[in-house]
Amino acid sequence: MITLTKEESVGIVETKHFEIKEDIPLDCGKTLGPITLAYETYGTLNKTKSNAILIFHALSGDAHVAGYHEEQNKPGWWDLHVGPAKSIDTNKFFIICINVIGGCKGSTGPSSINPKTNKPYGIDFPILTIKDMVSVQKKLIDHLEIKQLFAVIGGSMGGFQALQWSVLFPESSKLVIPIATAASQSPQNIAIQEVGRRAILGDPNWSKGNYYNKETPKSGLSTARMIGHITYLSEKAMKEKFGRRFQDKDKPDFNFNTEFQVESYLQYQGTSFVGRFDANSYLYITKAMDYFDLTEGDTKKLEDLFAKTNAKFLVLSYTSDWLYTTEQMKEIVRALQRSSHDVAFFEIEADQGHDSFLLENETQTNILKNFLNNNLEENE
Amino acid sequence: MITLTKEESVGIVETKHFEIKEDIPLDCGKTLGPITLAYETYGTLNKTKSNAILIFHALSGDAHVAGYHEEQNKPGWWDLHVGPAKSIDTNKFFIICINVIGGCKGSTGPSSINPKTNKPYGIDFPILTIKDMVSVQKKLIDHLEIKQLFAVIGGSMGGFQALQWSVLFPESSKLVIPIATAASQSPQNIAIQEVGRRAILGDPNWSKGNYYNKETPKSGLSTARMIGHITYLSEKAMKEKFGRRFQDKDKPDFNFNTEFQVESYLQYQGTSFVGRFDANSYLYITKAMDYFDLTEGDTKKLEDLFAKTNAKFLVLSYTSDWLYTTEQMKEIVRALQRSSHDVAFFEIEADQGHDSFLLENETQTNILKNFLNNNLEENE
Repeated sequence: MITLTKEESVGIVETKHFEIKEDIPLDCGKTLGPITLAYETYGTLNKTKSNAILIFHALSGDAHVAGYHEEQNKPGWWDLHVGPAKSIDTNKFFIICINVIGGCKGSTGPSSINPKTNKPYGIDFPILTIKDMVSVQKKLIDHLEIKQLFAVIGGSMGGFQALQWSVLFPESSKLVIPIATAASQSPQNIAIQEVGRRAILGDPNWSKGNYYNKETPKSGLSTARMIGHITYLSEKAMKEKFGRRFQDKDKPDFNFNTEFQVESYLQYQGTSFVGRFDANSYLYITKAMDYFDLTEGDTKKLEDLFAKTNAKFLVLSYTSDWLYTTEQMKEIVRALQRSSHDVAFFEIEADQGHDSFLLENETQTNILKNFLNNNLEENE
Repeated sequence: MITLTKEESVGIVETKHFEIKEDIPLDCGKTLGPITLAYETYGTLNKTKSNAILIFHALSGDAHVAGYHEEQNKPGWWDLHVGPAKSIDTNKFFIICINVIGGCKGSTGPSSINPKTNKPYGIDFPILTIKDMVSVQKKLIDHLEIKQLFAVIGGSMGGFQALQWSVLFPESSKLVIPIATAASQSPQNIAIQEVGRRAILGDPNWSKGNYYNKETPKSGLSTARMIGHITYLSEKAMKEKFGRRFQDKDKPDFNFNTEFQVESYLQYQGTSFVGRFDANSYLYITKAMDYFDLTEGDTKKLEDLFAKTNAKFLVLSYTSDWLYTTEQMKEIVRALQRSSHDVAFFEIEADQGHDSFLLENETQTNILKNFLNNNLEENE
């Protein structure tokens, strides 16, 4: 399907793998090892290794940010921004994205083979935190001998990682760009994700996580994804996109089949997700998100945490995002201001809810492009 | 437990039953009959039968609005407002509340015995609309020989019924009080309820609705209720009530057990609901809500519908209600203004989200009390 590869994309790309042989200690007290990290890179690392940008993906994302996999006609999840002459310009920058551990897109996760049993880990896989995820990613950056990244960028759970990175490795990135995210997962978001987890755990096919050679917990995972999707959109977006319209008819069926367009959309999102995501990974990744709290139960102050880094910050929120609100992002901005950081904050006008950061938006494109390019010029 | 009966309540009350012998035609084209309606009344109907107020309950409510059932120590669901000298004063008014058809609290619903088979209806029960619910309630009001109600009042789905009543029986109520509701169910709310229904329908114990002498679809119904509860609160209420606190400990357990307080609260809400509500009733009632659209797919204009009634309206919304927003309620108010109605509108400052209308709130109490009493004086 190479014909579909757009001229302006990075073209055909492939996922690479990095092996960590030693056991890595985790927040939960256990260790994990050996670990495989699936990752992709685009563009060229310059001689001084000063032009690398690490992009972090969100809950259901993967390392495939841009370009096309051989024989595939769907580009990476942020192809809109990452490519030649795009806002994250592969002619100027060396882009890296790594699939999180706990995932199911090539990095070690609950569906991987546990070397101790020669069977999939299932729920013997250790519980992870966002800190664990970024700590392991740092091993690859070290392996690539990149002393300081030009930027770390991430939206949603990717923003958790960008913030965690800036606090955990305060000297290792020149720029930090958290997008549509928060300094801690809100109780409302914990509640929403917990209901999704309960739907998976309550599905008889979940079989205590031991379903890899059996029927999988399709119903539970699909329910979890449907709940998620409601939170990724906005009321306005749903109204404009679907309204109260039925599928292919004017009048109700008067039964419990899917009949409203919005129901059909959600059903499709649920069903298609089941085919491309592992239910246990959903449990592990959402749990890591729910544990995320930079201030560690208010025992630390955000401004003190940020005080350790000299990075410049660009913080982006979206008017209609009710999952990670502008108010939550302003807490980050205010803490950065209190710790005397160079911080730019934009609340971008967008109707599509949390998903806005993944969608075409000229303002977002310009802000990202200018921030990266202006700081690159200063760099040179 | 009579000792717990508060002096200021209506005291011990009991649910009565009204039988409709004939078959009632429904919106879906089928008929339903015979029908039992469970209802309660408080206060005394005056000689001119001009002091009756019909209260409509919400999704999981019932006819038991105020006072105490014998041997029970929990008062009715709106005891806060309904009682002697309360905002809806039982010394002045004769209050009626009727359990909706399709429910499981005494009125005919899917768990009732189908006289044709001598087995519970299950999903042979016909699909209902809000119009069907109020049409059947009108039969009881007619039986009580009440020509014109003093007021119809309802919050949430109760508000749907109040609005539907005012349009369907335009001369049959002097006052109409829709609270925390909308003129049509929004696509976002359809989406939220559809996920709940899918969780029930996907529970293997649902058995095509035929579970009455077997294991019930506990997991699905509990998931549906948990999703609902998230939408009844506000982000702020969750933050204040639970924050990110764990139950009985400071540190995470690093497993998939319920550990955050907000998770435990939701779990409890889910589990306790399963003990008091029928999963099929949940399907039927939410479906009726989702079909609700006064304008019938924009084929009618709200102002034209309201133009038929001379009723006075009091419309109440709550600042933190994101299920039925102030913006949605303003659509009702604007339509009433366009049709030259006497309409009072208040957006009440409250942090507890959609549930605010069920909770202590001095402003709400005063507004309701004054509106009813002032109009009663004019009446006399």
